[in-house]
Amino acid sequence: MITDREKAAFEAGIKLGALYHQFVGTPIARETAGAVETAIEQAVGLQPFVQEITVRLNREMMVSNRFGYSELAGKMFDVAIRTEVGAASCRATLRLEDDYPMMAITEIHEAPGNTDH
Amino acid sequence: MITDREKAAFEAGIKLGALYHQFVGTPIARETAGAVETAIEQAVGLQPFVQEITVRLNREMMVSNRFGYSELAGKMFDVAIRTEVGAASCRATLRLEDDYPMMAITEIHEAPGNTDH
Amino acid sequence: MITDREKAAFEAGIKLGALYHQFVGTPIARETAGAVETAIEQAVGLQPFVQEITVRLNREMMVSNRFGYSELAGKMFDVAIRTEVGAASCRATLRLEDDYPMMAITEIHEAPGNTDH
Amino acid sequence: MITDREKAAFEAGIKLGALYHQFVGTPIARETAGAVETAIEQAVGLQPFVQEITVRLNREMMVSNRFGYSELAGKMFDVAIRTEVGAASCRATLRLEDDYPMMAITEIHEAPGNTDH
Repeated sequence: MITDREKAAFEAGIKLGALYHQFVGTPIARETAGAVETAIEQAVGLQPFVQEITVRLNREMMVSNRFGYSELAGKMFDVAIRTEVGAASCRATLRLEDDYPMMAITEIHEAPGNTDH
Repeated sequence: MITDREKAAFEAGIKLGALYHQFVGTPIARETAGAVETAIEQAVGLQPFVQEITVRLNREMMVSNRFGYSELAGKMFDVAIRTEVGAASCRATLRLEDDYPMMAITEIHEAPGNTDH
Repeated sequence: MITDREKAAFEAGIKLGALYHQFVGTPIARETAGAVETAIEQAVGLQPFVQEITVRLNREMMVSNRFGYSELAGKMFDVAIRTEVGAASCRATLRLEDDYPMMAITEIHEAPGNTDH
Repeated sequence: MITDREKAAFEAGIKLGALYHQFVGTPIARETAGAVETAIEQAVGLQPFVQEITVRLNREMMVSNRFGYSELAGKMFDVAIRTEVGAASCRATLRLEDDYPMMAITEIHEAPGNTDH
């Protein structure tokens, strides 16, 4: 049997993997970072089981190349997501950890009173 | 507490979301589908916690445009993945279901004798 | 010898190819299309030699799947770009033509008085 | 009027921009680089007006992260393409130049005897 907690974790993983690989490589600069954050949040917010999503992109890392812009890299992401399946809720993050853009579950809980699982 | 089963589900989700959004849009045709399948399998196989990955792309759907090729669409994917975290193993798939490219967990199990969780 | 007109055409091609393959696959719906248009325009506007860029995404084609959203497809794009190299200016478009998302140069001109080429 | 030389340059730009943004972010390692090179060459080879395409990915730059793999970055590309429109042929490259993944036309020529333009 697969629990709602496991399903919520699966859904959170899908969304983080998806947004990373959809948007890495996008031309970016400090003055356009806000528009990209908004677009990513709105895109992910459409997907099933997503309850909350916040995307912050590290502007410090947006060092200009010779043409005056940078490129969205995995290490720039600071993302927090919350998915919900049934009564289970999963929080997960994508953020830099020891120089690796790590995706991790930070919390799963199930609303009390749900005795299905 | 987050169980190994939940972590394995999260990791499976990451990989399916990632491969979908990395490769959708790739120019493709029946005669090149094999090379793309191989590239995706090898790419995903590098990622942490992946134990098995098979990718089949539906050649029937690769209808040529006026220039003689098609484009990799989400509906063409038939993917099976197995991730492993600790003693827990998660199987998940990405495949067409009622005209939607559905990602779903098909099985999670934990090796007997593991009493940590 | 390579003329500025040819270079401007090359640069326009780069930007259209880039934006298509960067953003195809993005989850989208009518209510989020504006944010994606803005993000694409700003991203492409950062790139070298781009003087103008407008991106319109066809909301008619954004038919909801069972989860209430759609996915950015090549056929939804209506893009006009102008690049400039030296005194040469190239206008190009990406738009649906006979059911194919066609990229084409619509105009190249060189400012009078430039006698280098 | 737009010449075949200009169209060939435009087409070369499209393909370089496309492949860059389609494949940047792909998980990669030295032992899988060959499969990704093949997949990119075959994908681009399907597109209209492409006569030749070679893709080499810089294995030196594929430094393993803590999980033993790397990620395809723009700086790893060494690509040479030849497009043909009418009697005009355009060669262009994508390769590292002063730490920037530069796309440039290297040669355009038109077959003698073609007096249309």
